[in-house]
Amino acid sequence: MMKHFDKRALLSTDKSYRRDFVNCLSGYKSLNLIGTKSDSGKTNLAPFTQVFHIGASPPLIGILFRPHTAERHTLENILASKFFTLNHVTEAFYKEAHHTSARWEESEFQATGLEEEYLEGFWAPYVKASPLKIGCTLAEVQTLQINGTVMVIGEIAHVFVEEKALGEDGFISLETLGTVTVSGLDEYHVGRKLARLSYAKANVPLTEI
Amino acid sequence: MMKHFDKRALLSTDKSYRRDFVNCLSGYKSLNLIGTKSDSGKTNLAPFTQVFHIGASPPLIGILFRPHTAERHTLENILASKFFTLNHVTEAFYKEAHHTSARWEESEFQATGLEEEYLEGFWAPYVKASPLKIGCTLAEVQTLQINGTVMVIGEIAHVFVEEKALGEDGFISLETLGTVTVSGLDEYHVGRKLARLSYAKANVPLTEI
Repeated sequence: MMKHFDKRALLSTDKSYRRDFVNCLSGYKSLNLIGTKSDSGKTNLAPFTQVFHIGASPPLIGILFRPHTAERHTLENILASKFFTLNHVTEAFYKEAHHTSARWEESEFQATGLEEEYLEGFWAPYVKASPLKIGCTLAEVQTLQINGTVMVIGEIAHVFVEEKALGEDGFISLETLGTVTVSGLDEYHVGRKLARLSYAKANVPLTEI
Repeated sequence: MMKHFDKRALLSTDKSYRRDFVNCLSGYKSLNLIGTKSDSGKTNLAPFTQVFHIGASPPLIGILFRPHTAERHTLENILASKFFTLNHVTEAFYKEAHHTSARWEESEFQATGLEEEYLEGFWAPYVKASPLKIGCTLAEVQTLQINGTVMVIGEIAHVFVEEKALGEDGFISLETLGTVTVSGLDEYHVGRKLARLSYAKANVPLTEI
């Protein structure tokens, strides 16, 4: 049985229902902890599920920041310092990752016990426990007129990845890394592989790679 | 062992390696089939992994279109008609979904055997087999200066969702739906739930919902 919501029905649900519902609609979301550091040297760590691929040449990654949320520390640090890190989250520390979203007085690294790591002289802190860490420099900022969402585009300056997950063709196995994915605001999952499929051509059957 | 790539090392890999590698970096990606129809009535169906939540009030969803790719039929139809559908993909038809990315002469619905469905008088076709279908109207278009990527923002006009997956609080279980997620360009997964976690507060232990 399918349940139907039209726009009026959606807008008449209460705010909390609508937030949970609409956050599930796009499907599984990536999860990255973003590490930043303020001018005064205070570190910040926060979970983001609106991080996505933008291009491979040059290598670019995008992040959406909702207007007027607690996450603004991350955005302010990125705009001021021009540096940030993205860190995949695994089953071993997804609860600590979730807990970084609370309003802590101290740095979220200290608060949750996740260890900072500094690599190759990069300003922003990485998460030591993460099996895939990306160092980015700020490349472009755009504001979406429709609701004030801010889109930050970062250029990838460094990647650190667990060697055992990296294939000869450049493909990275997220299952080998143990990368976690999110649905809605607060449900965590790992992936179970179905298959990797060949490049699709018309009238040619697909094969598994 | 961690392997390190700096920007120079990344740019010196060959194009195919870099495309596979960079496409994996953001983590698991959502998968949606986008259904559209041209002015002349020809339907189109194509898989997209750059679809993301933008806001709940009003309910908005964003899609990135790479510049100069075969996917432009979808973009052209959206710009001309102002309507499109998003359809979750399950294990039952993810191979057909992948195959819609080939260059077919005929409509991808006919080519792959996925059945069109028209609901509530909406112009764009849904995928009948999908357990979560969204009808969107075009709300905003922006081009990213940095690489010509086009961002389309859709306002959600209709949602059709399998009732058994919908919780009382508005949360939708993607595992109950059987929704598929993608890594890189061509590896397909389903999710295995770890937990749903309580709203995070400083100095208060998390609980599982």
